[in-house]
Amino acid sequence: MALIVQKYGGTSVADLDRVRNVAERVLRTYFQGNQVVVVLSAMAGETDRLLRLGRNLTPHPEPREMDVLLATGEQTSVALFAMAVNSMGVPARSLLGHQARIVTDEVYGRARIVDVETERIRRELDRGRVVAVAGFQGLDENGNITTLGRGGSDTTAVALAAALKADVCEIYTDVKGVYTTDPNLVPEARKLDKISYDEMLEMASLGAKVLEIRSVEFASKYKVPIHVRSSFSHEEGTYVVDKDVSMEKVVVSGVAYSKDQAQVTIKGVPDQPGIAAQIFGPISDAGIVVDVIIQNTAEDGLTDVTFTVTRTDLERTLDLTRETARRIGVREEDVVSGSSIAKVAIIGVGMQNHAGVASKMFRCLAENGINIILITTSEIKVSVVIDDRYTELAVRALHEAFELEKGPVEG
Amino acid sequence: MALIVQKYGGTSVADLDRVRNVAERVLRTYFQGNQVVVVLSAMAGETDRLLRLGRNLTPHPEPREMDVLLATGEQTSVALFAMAVNSMGVPARSLLGHQARIVTDEVYGRARIVDVETERIRRELDRGRVVAVAGFQGLDENGNITTLGRGGSDTTAVALAAALKADVCEIYTDVKGVYTTDPNLVPEARKLDKISYDEMLEMASLGAKVLEIRSVEFASKYKVPIHVRSSFSHEEGTYVVDKDVSMEKVVVSGVAYSKDQAQVTIKGVPDQPGIAAQIFGPISDAGIVVDVIIQNTAEDGLTDVTFTVTRTDLERTLDLTRETARRIGVREEDVVSGSSIAKVAIIGVGMQNHAGVASKMFRCLAENGINIILITTSEIKVSVVIDDRYTELAVRALHEAFELEKGPVEG
Repeated sequence: MALIVQKYGGTSVADLDRVRNVAERVLRTYFQGNQVVVVLSAMAGETDRLLRLGRNLTPHPEPREMDVLLATGEQTSVALFAMAVNSMGVPARSLLGHQARIVTDEVYGRARIVDVETERIRRELDRGRVVAVAGFQGLDENGNITTLGRGGSDTTAVALAAALKADVCEIYTDVKGVYTTDPNLVPEARKLDKISYDEMLEMASLGAKVLEIRSVEFASKYKVPIHVRSSFSHEEGTYVVDKDVSMEKVVVSGVAYSKDQAQVTIKGVPDQPGIAAQIFGPISDAGIVVDVIIQNTAEDGLTDVTFTVTRTDLERTLDLTRETARRIGVREEDVVSGSSIAKVAIIGVGMQNHAGVASKMFRCLAENGINIILITTSEIKVSVVIDDRYTELAVRALHEAFELEKGPVEG
Repeated sequence: MALIVQKYGGTSVADLDRVRNVAERVLRTYFQGNQVVVVLSAMAGETDRLLRLGRNLTPHPEPREMDVLLATGEQTSVALFAMAVNSMGVPARSLLGHQARIVTDEVYGRARIVDVETERIRRELDRGRVVAVAGFQGLDENGNITTLGRGGSDTTAVALAAALKADVCEIYTDVKGVYTTDPNLVPEARKLDKISYDEMLEMASLGAKVLEIRSVEFASKYKVPIHVRSSFSHEEGTYVVDKDVSMEKVVVSGVAYSKDQAQVTIKGVPDQPGIAAQIFGPISDAGIVVDVIIQNTAEDGLTDVTFTVTRTDLERTLDLTRETARRIGVREEDVVSGSSIAKVAIIGVGMQNHAGVASKMFRCLAENGINIILITTSEIKVSVVIDDRYTELAVRALHEAFELEKGPVEG
């Protein structure tokens, strides 16, 4: 008998028919003799509806109360799901964040899970019940309701799987698994049988929406095997697991891209210690994530600093950067920005043991006439910033150059 | 500084504008230097919508899960209300049943409050916060969500007022208070300044919907002064309080009626001990409330038993009664029913000290050509069952005969 955590997203429970379908899927697993904990998101569109409701009441709703409001979404899903399972003759219980004892910090709207007390869940499982846990929500130490932010139900599922030492955490979604790249862009994109946590993290940070990034971090930390699969078929999907030897044989596992990028350059910055802290401190304090940072070689004690942020953060970043510029004696007109850029990356744990991966990437882009604006690398990733008009071309060319449409060669 | 519990019903929070209005009303009381605990119902129509949602999923939804679903209604109301108050610059906190520690028994769908732990609410009040408590919901000893049944928010408010030893429990509604009778029927009906718990109970049990009956029982038991008033004006309404000397001077306080009645007669019942238990046991076990019971004088050891139930319970009552009839040797065709009856009652604590009230009532009805089918009396009530075609006539005639349009004469 295995203990399986299954997570279904909002589209999987979008209406009553789909709720019944999910109940039937869960019962397949249950009747195979497994214990099943099901984590559900709010019905598709519900979280947005509740956000609008709050914002229509007042432009800046109190975050604590917004979380109380948002938490009704998942509460509705688990109640309906448990009713559906009960109506099929199998005992089921819904548990909300406070009942499943999903303890978080007190950062409303984007709380982090700090503990899961599994006693209640185990008791229900031991009574032969299917347990439905509301995703996305928890409670802080003072018993206030918190929510985990967008995609938080993935994190709920992985955290429960870790705390319960589940055999697997199945994430059901509307795609069949993790692909070598976006299948909408490259029809030859191939579904991966497995991928390492680190590769998945890089993919997710580049906007692959199949898994929420924090859930992958959590899974990686506690070695929870994730199985990403479709809620509309019974096919196997992609396992996200610790890296193994077979993965290292594959040089590049996937090509990821993100068009949601913008770039800021400050020209003629005095090249002296502490200047980076002065520039990036206020931006980070504002909760804005800076991605690539490049500092050009100094001339006459002056240097150019270029960095990227997401497009939605550009305006606020520019305001903050111009303020900093004044303080450090740089003219405002020397702060320039561009938002027609994209990031394209090749990702693979195998890179560590293979030379020449980066140069093969650059050659491929050059042959396709694509100019590279910025480059960053990590152990398992080479990432370039390019003009966003060339995104699709770059992704297709790289997918072909690294022969990603072909499966891994065993041997 | 007083501690005031205010309860607003679903129509008072039917949309965002009304939620803001309620917030403004509450702040008037707050800025007069009072501590305020606000109990809210679900937005008008929301509970029905959720009931439909559950029943569309499955004809007999699991009661535990239905309560989880229904509880989202009040959760939404308190979150929005607390946001509204916060946006007006006053700190507010919503508390759900499990946070306000409203402990109930475990009868899902119609749970009874057994305890309220006020520590958390007091802590919030002491910090100068407006506290918004979700009505209608609680938690049982095992931490499961329960709901109190229709009108349960009134009970939540009175229970909180009792536990907090509040100075008053204000019930805001869409009428201006408690009237001598239904103003839709009798334009001369007069709003009462005060009424005793016992009178209110009799009124409520006859279908006066202004207060949920259990909330009055609760208030009576713990001597919580209730103030029923309109959420659309600032006028004083009606105080529901312990009876005092001035009330006893008034012979009749009000005329109540209920058209939702049906009558069942079993003819030729053997007049022997234990027969009543055999007839009414199964009915009461089915949760059906039997109101008036009349047993005619026995002839040849046989007697006729007549009783009334609400119309919605008639079919089920007939089924059960026919079954009993077979068991006690009465023919099925001797179980007869009628549903075109109504109950009309005069109510007043003053009756206890005034002779001739009942005969004045009967005379008034006779003069208007209204036949009395059944009569029951209590210390503070005389109730008759009549043909429902005469309900309006009876109510108007009695209201006039007892001069209820005139206020109490002081002296």
